[in-house]
Amino acid sequence: MAVILITGGARSGKSTHAEKRALSFPGQPVYIATAEALDAEMAVRIAKHRAKRAAVDWIEREVPLDLLQALIDTDGGGPRLVDCLTLWLSNMMHAGRDWEYELMKLAAFLRGQKSPVVFVTNEVGLGIVPDNALARSYRDAAGIMNQVIAAVSNEVEFVVAGLPMKLK
Amino acid sequence: MAVILITGGARSGKSTHAEKRALSFPGQPVYIATAEALDAEMAVRIAKHRAKRAAVDWIEREVPLDLLQALIDTDGGGPRLVDCLTLWLSNMMHAGRDWEYELMKLAAFLRGQKSPVVFVTNEVGLGIVPDNALARSYRDAAGIMNQVIAAVSNEVEFVVAGLPMKLK
Amino acid sequence: MAVILITGGARSGKSTHAEKRALSFPGQPVYIATAEALDAEMAVRIAKHRAKRAAVDWIEREVPLDLLQALIDTDGGGPRLVDCLTLWLSNMMHAGRDWEYELMKLAAFLRGQKSPVVFVTNEVGLGIVPDNALARSYRDAAGIMNQVIAAVSNEVEFVVAGLPMKLK
Repeated sequence: MAVILITGGARSGKSTHAEKRALSFPGQPVYIATAEALDAEMAVRIAKHRAKRAAVDWIEREVPLDLLQALIDTDGGGPRLVDCLTLWLSNMMHAGRDWEYELMKLAAFLRGQKSPVVFVTNEVGLGIVPDNALARSYRDAAGIMNQVIAAVSNEVEFVVAGLPMKLK
Repeated sequence: MAVILITGGARSGKSTHAEKRALSFPGQPVYIATAEALDAEMAVRIAKHRAKRAAVDWIEREVPLDLLQALIDTDGGGPRLVDCLTLWLSNMMHAGRDWEYELMKLAAFLRGQKSPVVFVTNEVGLGIVPDNALARSYRDAAGIMNQVIAAVSNEVEFVVAGLPMKLK
Repeated sequence: MAVILITGGARSGKSTHAEKRALSFPGQPVYIATAEALDAEMAVRIAKHRAKRAAVDWIEREVPLDLLQALIDTDGGGPRLVDCLTLWLSNMMHAGRDWEYELMKLAAFLRGQKSPVVFVTNEVGLGIVPDNALARSYRDAAGIMNQVIAAVSNEVEFVVAGLPMKLK
């Protein structure tokens, strides 16, 4: 079992690094995208991400909410790359889902995975306290989520300017 | 003498890590809270923090402003945990106190402490430049404060996703 | 050849650390400031920075846009300190210049430099996603720029609370 968490800021190079980590494992790689193309900006971002991945023959799945089920469905094959947890959290909160319960289930399940999982997440709590209460709730939730997933991960790396620092 | 600074983002696990560091020293631990329950959100945060600490028999002190005096009063006993410096800074600025002068006095005094002190602080300068001038002043002040306290600390750790990185 | 990138948050001590790194090289040091005193707040910031540098006999150049030319002009002499890249990027975007093309030219050119170059830059992508699209574009651009310069640098350090962490 290998569970790897790659964290960092926006455009820190964390996705590229996470792809490299995922592709270091044998087997057919699976790309689990939590993004949905709900607006033009998002669609452009997704297309750019896809273009960068084009050279590798990923199996792609769009999983905005049911991440645990997607991991269960794809276990036993090659490595899975989940990009990214913070967007999944945002989708869960937006959909009114009980993210804390789902997160705990996910964390418990990860310990039993046979195929590798590489998670990408964002650090969002290192700026000024946001003005609005929703943003404060979100950044608190993201911080808690990152701690929970880090605790059950075998390796955690923090990427700055494309360069990983080993946290665990 | 041991002065330890634990820094990190919101919900990075820095308080939990700082508590662990403080409790590794012998003697009756003292919890110096800089938070005041001025509104409902803050009251909930304080209550959550207190609940997490309940298992240990801390002596608790609420010290929104006179941090140096609280450290003088509690020196000679067990370890002190100050959670957190950024809130103290915010209280000082809000009260119109001369935080730079008080900070320098605090830094000078720390070198002579007999009992351990563990400080929690926040990194707030790693986001986009804030729109409003007050937030910019605050994040500048917080950055300066963190540098000053780090300079007189024996150990400094930066916590990301619950995992400490040694800075000093 | 030595190209060094010093990154960190606002008031993290990165400029002071970068100055120390630059001054560790022999020869007449050159300070390349990307800041322009367009308003009172900026003028105060520039004056404060200059006062801190006063003890050393820097040659100072104000280079808001034509950074590559300034590096070409000053090559062959002592070390150059560029403070900072994120402000240069902001100036380029504001002036409607093709920053991506200029960045690629700069990165390609750096490999051939004879005199040392120490760059200061900011991490701006570790907070909550900004509300406005311009700020989002800027933080994306800053993240890409930092990755590109880091990739061609010999050394990269991330400064927190005045303390550098080695990334490369």
